[in-house]
Amino acid sequence: MRGQAIDALETPSVLIDMDIMERNIARMQERCDQLGIDFRPHIKTHKIPDIARRQLEAGAVGIACQKVSEAEVFASAGFRDIQIPYNIVGARKTARLAELAKQAAISVTVDSRAVVDGIAAAAQTAGAHINVLVELVSLGKRTGATPGDALRLAQHISATANLRFAGVMVYPSDAVMRPRLAETLALLEAAGIPARTISGGGSGAIREAHLLPELTEMRVGTYVFWDWGSVDKVYTTFDHCAMRVRATVVSANEASRVILDAGSKSIHSETVEGRYGYIEEFPDARLHQVNEEHGYVDFSACATIPAVGDVLHIIPVHTCVVTNLHNRLYGVRSGLIEQVWDVAARGLVW
Amino acid sequence: MRGQAIDALETPSVLIDMDIMERNIARMQERCDQLGIDFRPHIKTHKIPDIARRQLEAGAVGIACQKVSEAEVFASAGFRDIQIPYNIVGARKTARLAELAKQAAISVTVDSRAVVDGIAAAAQTAGAHINVLVELVSLGKRTGATPGDALRLAQHISATANLRFAGVMVYPSDAVMRPRLAETLALLEAAGIPARTISGGGSGAIREAHLLPELTEMRVGTYVFWDWGSVDKVYTTFDHCAMRVRATVVSANEASRVILDAGSKSIHSETVEGRYGYIEEFPDARLHQVNEEHGYVDFSACATIPAVGDVLHIIPVHTCVVTNLHNRLYGVRSGLIEQVWDVAARGLVW
Repeated sequence: MRGQAIDALETPSVLIDMDIMERNIARMQERCDQLGIDFRPHIKTHKIPDIARRQLEAGAVGIACQKVSEAEVFASAGFRDIQIPYNIVGARKTARLAELAKQAAISVTVDSRAVVDGIAAAAQTAGAHINVLVELVSLGKRTGATPGDALRLAQHISATANLRFAGVMVYPSDAVMRPRLAETLALLEAAGIPARTISGGGSGAIREAHLLPELTEMRVGTYVFWDWGSVDKVYTTFDHCAMRVRATVVSANEASRVILDAGSKSIHSETVEGRYGYIEEFPDARLHQVNEEHGYVDFSACATIPAVGDVLHIIPVHTCVVTNLHNRLYGVRSGLIEQVWDVAARGLVW
Repeated sequence: MRGQAIDALETPSVLIDMDIMERNIARMQERCDQLGIDFRPHIKTHKIPDIARRQLEAGAVGIACQKVSEAEVFASAGFRDIQIPYNIVGARKTARLAELAKQAAISVTVDSRAVVDGIAAAAQTAGAHINVLVELVSLGKRTGATPGDALRLAQHISATANLRFAGVMVYPSDAVMRPRLAETLALLEAAGIPARTISGGGSGAIREAHLLPELTEMRVGTYVFWDWGSVDKVYTTFDHCAMRVRATVVSANEASRVILDAGSKSIHSETVEGRYGYIEEFPDARLHQVNEEHGYVDFSACATIPAVGDVLHIIPVHTCVVTNLHNRLYGVRSGLIEQVWDVAARGLVW
């Protein structure tokens, strides 16, 4: 398909504008360089080694993956510094993690002693060394430990064979986290186990990273493609959105509504203001409902309405979950297909 | 993995209870046999040839797929009667469809002249014959033609080389559609082009199929696994739900809430009453939020709360979209893994 016009692509398929993606990669690296911190892209948004390679070439120090299975795909592709900012729980998962730690520098995060002990047992059995960051609970209270618990976890990690206490992780690392982070770092310092790495993350938090000078690195994923959800949160603007789902009008029997061949199996079912995607050619059209393979678009606010066979381009609400629905992404430039990427790390069980 | 205990499965992974699935397959076939109509399972729910084979062995006349690419997978797997109840639009798609029609009996549906003409051109070029059903618009007004337009489309199809007018399709074929269907059939009869096949469909509509005696076949997909959405709509009960997403508690630092390792990339983001799945072990627990790889569960209405490492089983809201997120499904019986199925037709572009 490479070199062909994008018209050669069937619908629904996922297009990535290479110029915009390259600009996004360069800009985020520049931002981190200016801040004087390391940048560690999260591959969850693309799950494609070739794109991660471009992120490293731009200056990233390593990558972040969300699962052991994803890290295995990237380790096989030659990546040698992989962070999994997730509690890895379960004897088989920790065993695979420990095997992985023999091939690459692996760091993980923990928020409880139970998680530490599972990882330690696997590392000791395998004779591997694993770097462990303690996750500090953020305002969203998803995962993470309190400052006091973080100290106790750090002490426990430091005292455990085959584990190395590597520092503190926060997600999202909004500026409002500074007092809690400072408290944690002071506790660690006083205990004589200072944090080497202070890893922040989040598409919103990167804008405020200068207000959290303690950070030594940032993890961001979505920035590589951005999406309508990010525009809606004012993290970015439409001109930085690199992903489009290309869709065809397959039915137009109602007065001001058409049906597209892209539904929840192609564009997922997250929404912004009740809309499942932003239609580039018709900003006032409302993609207001999806079934598995159908998207319903209301054109009553538009001057014209497309006909059966017309092709439209949808900026998705959330690119990370869209990538996970597709086997392939297509990199396009100047109207031509430049890259055909297999989404190598998608659909993995664990 | 076959023969191992289900504890050998990592999380999140998707389990199918073989006993329940087999009972679902048998019951639906029985229902159609009693009605004296053909049964044509829609494979969208499983996308797995081995399961479709079981449906045929139980008595189904053929299968329905939603995309040409899916039909190609099933034709390659030996299926010889495939219906695609969808408007196939675009020159490359119709060309593939026509090629497919040389290997298997292929029927498609249409709701406009533009769709008919595209399919006709491809069939004529390829020298293939394609069976075409006219879709009648239903109350949901998704796709479909009015009775008058259905007649004109049927006449046009009948007059077009390489196309065979095969009948009428309705989705969903609720009993309330009877007057419109009867009107359409009378128009066709009067015009001397009677409908051979009258194809109904829908997980809800199958319950009312006896009220629409004009039907010659029914297409149903979800029944093979059912799901919480179907229970919520009173199409079935929990004891017929065959799919579970197996998930592990990875964090439990809040008083009455834990975090599971299953989020929108594993269980999708559709909801029933604001809940993203029904937790079998804790019916009163509320899976009230998902991120990509995290599920938030509130246990404040429960007497006990699970700990890090505990494994739970989630009955998903919508099985069809869950299948599409995974590379593999695991068939289990009596606590053992009996089948490891690749989801052969998932993630396909078109």
